Amino acid sequence: MSPAESFARLRLARTDGIGPTTFRRLIERHGSGAAALDALPGHASRTGRLHSPPPSGEVEREMAGLARLGGHFLILGQPGYPPLLLLLEDPPPVLAVLGDITILPRRQVGVVGARAASAGGRRIAEELAAGLTMAGLAVTSGLARGIDAAAHFGALNAHGRTIAVVAGGIDMPYPAENAGLQARIAAEGGAVVSEAPLGTAPQARHLPRRNRIVAGLVLGLVVVEAAARSGSLITARLALEASREVFAVPGSPLDPRSAGSNDLIRQGAHLTETAEDVLANLPETPRDMPLFRPRIAAFPPEELPAEVELAAGDSGKVLEMIGTTPVAVDDIARRCHLSAPIVQSILLDLEMSGLVESLPGNRVARSAG
Amino acid sequence: MSPAESFARLRLARTDGIGPTTFRRLIERHGSGAAALDALPGHASRTGRLHSPPPSGEVEREMAGLARLGGHFLILGQPGYPPLLLLLEDPPPVLAVLGDITILPRRQVGVVGARAASAGGRRIAEELAAGLTMAGLAVTSGLARGIDAAAHFGALNAHGRTIAVVAGGIDMPYPAENAGLQARIAAEGGAVVSEAPLGTAPQARHLPRRNRIVAGLVLGLVVVEAAARSGSLITARLALEASREVFAVPGSPLDPRSAGSNDLIRQGAHLTETAEDVLANLPETPRDMPLFRPRIAAFPPEELPAEVELAAGDSGKVLEMIGTTPVAVDDIARRCHLSAPIVQSILLDLEMSGLVESLPGNRVARSAG
Repeated sequence: MSPAESFARLRLARTDGIGPTTFRRLIERHGSGAAALDALPGHASRTGRLHSPPPSGEVEREMAGLARLGGHFLILGQPGYPPLLLLLEDPPPVLAVLGDITILPRRQVGVVGARAASAGGRRIAEELAAGLTMAGLAVTSGLARGIDAAAHFGALNAHGRTIAVVAGGIDMPYPAENAGLQARIAAEGGAVVSEAPLGTAPQARHLPRRNRIVAGLVLGLVVVEAAARSGSLITARLALEASREVFAVPGSPLDPRSAGSNDLIRQGAHLTETAEDVLANLPETPRDMPLFRPRIAAFPPEELPAEVELAAGDSGKVLEMIGTTPVAVDDIARRCHLSAPIVQSILLDLEMSGLVESLPGNRVARSAG
Repeated sequence: MSPAESFARLRLARTDGIGPTTFRRLIERHGSGAAALDALPGHASRTGRLHSPPPSGEVEREMAGLARLGGHFLILGQPGYPPLLLLLEDPPPVLAVLGDITILPRRQVGVVGARAASAGGRRIAEELAAGLTMAGLAVTSGLARGIDAAAHFGALNAHGRTIAVVAGGIDMPYPAENAGLQARIAAEGGAVVSEAPLGTAPQARHLPRRNRIVAGLVLGLVVVEAAARSGSLITARLALEASREVFAVPGSPLDPRSAGSNDLIRQGAHLTETAEDVLANLPETPRDMPLFRPRIAAFPPEELPAEVELAAGDSGKVLEMIGTTPVAVDDIARRCHLSAPIVQSILLDLEMSGLVESLPGNRVARSAG
């Protein structure tokens, strides 16, 4: 990918209102980041909503800032982009990476769990991480307090590779107590990864995007100590939706910190006591699930979609089919008697207008807002 | 069943060398306990080993002793004999019962586990037992220290029914510290059950027979805290072989007392935190497994097997087929070109001679001794 195209994609990714799914659709539609940037005013003429890319100088400043930290951008479509992330419907358009960027395509296992973990839970996470790295896997987690930090420490102490996915900007370590751990991960052969622009203060609302990257990077996810309705369970659900294996460490029913992990086992997660339990059940590649086939075979696509001719009223017909209940894109095409490329084209505009949002499983729904 | 026939069966059951399987086969062959007693010398003429029933006076003394304790015998073939025990290949010929004999045919769940249980494990066993009895089930266990005792206490404290199966004579409470618990179970609407004659000192070698009765009485068995290779796991295996549901309470991988129960879950036992987990997975009747169909449809059989004519050498042919590796009775019949009744008749004699022993799944093997 040429430096100019990388720059264009970074600029497109940093455009307000262009999320990961829209980014992917724009590149698929227009063939390149540069072409997609050029096409934004055209979309605006149909959607009534202009997405203005940030000034080039702002993007250059972010690039220089990351270079000063010793980091690199990894852009969707570049070689070295983690192949398992390409199975997501909404792969991150851009990842900022500190440390060894070459380990991101390696086989990884996630180890996540409660922030308010018990000493026993932290010890289990450390031992699991050590065992997994000794088997040649990288251990991926979210740099949070408790289980996440223990997993990173366990990998480092075993001289293994570990990958931290953070929610805020890569220059804003969070929590502050783990700033040293983040630096150590980057310095000792691991990698720190963020989808957020430099300088983004980490906030709770960024956690779902962080969790989907953890789930998307790994072949399997181990949940150690998760209370009922905790964030780790959301990551586990995302991993299942992405056809990854889910593992959970059991605990006493008297310990509320184990309610979520026990429930995962009840629902079919592999009961896990040691790294061997993970290794025995880890596939070479994600299982193929009907819900979730690889979204991106070649990226950018080898052939651009043919120009489509929209008839007046087609857009309204499509929008009418879409309510707050998710509906399959295939169903829309069939029920509107429109071709798939026409429906895709209309949906891209509807997404960019903010009326419609994409959902897993090639489904769409009216935006909540 | 007439008092004379009950007496004959009790006497046959108390005959040295006549175990549960041989008892069942003798009744099936001869139609009654009295006829089986009469036939013992005839078997001896073929096997060279005479099984002498105890003098009637000895049996009368045991009956009087049990009556003095306020107990009753429940004899295989009597109404009120627990129907699920009839699914075993080796149902106990006789049970001595203290307390309410009428609860034995009721739906039961077993709760068993480690003697050296943690305080948490005992609390879980108590709560499970309370919840199960409140749902109308009787809770069955083995009166041992730790989890067993906690299960009995939990049921009693919830004003529920509980059944203790003991390994020694019913007049020899073991461990001594649970003598009061045994008396309370019998006095508060529960039952204490033993297959052993009165006065039998409990020994470790009796535990497998005790465990098979626990497994045989229940629709489901919950294992709370079981170390690797512990007795509770043997009971769980017996329950599986008898097509009963197996449940296990998870625990931390750092606690060796949970290694066995976690392993049961890994092998497919229902992960169990509360009584609801049991109730949601408890069938009305045991699952039908190919390995283990009901052995006894009508007992005693409505029709006696026809007299069989043994040719010289048939017995030797059958014995030649039987090595230390278990072999199916059906295979023996086919490979010896003998009818099933002839093979059954020969096997009964071989068992009574001590050369051959019966195994689950209608298989036999050379006796180890």
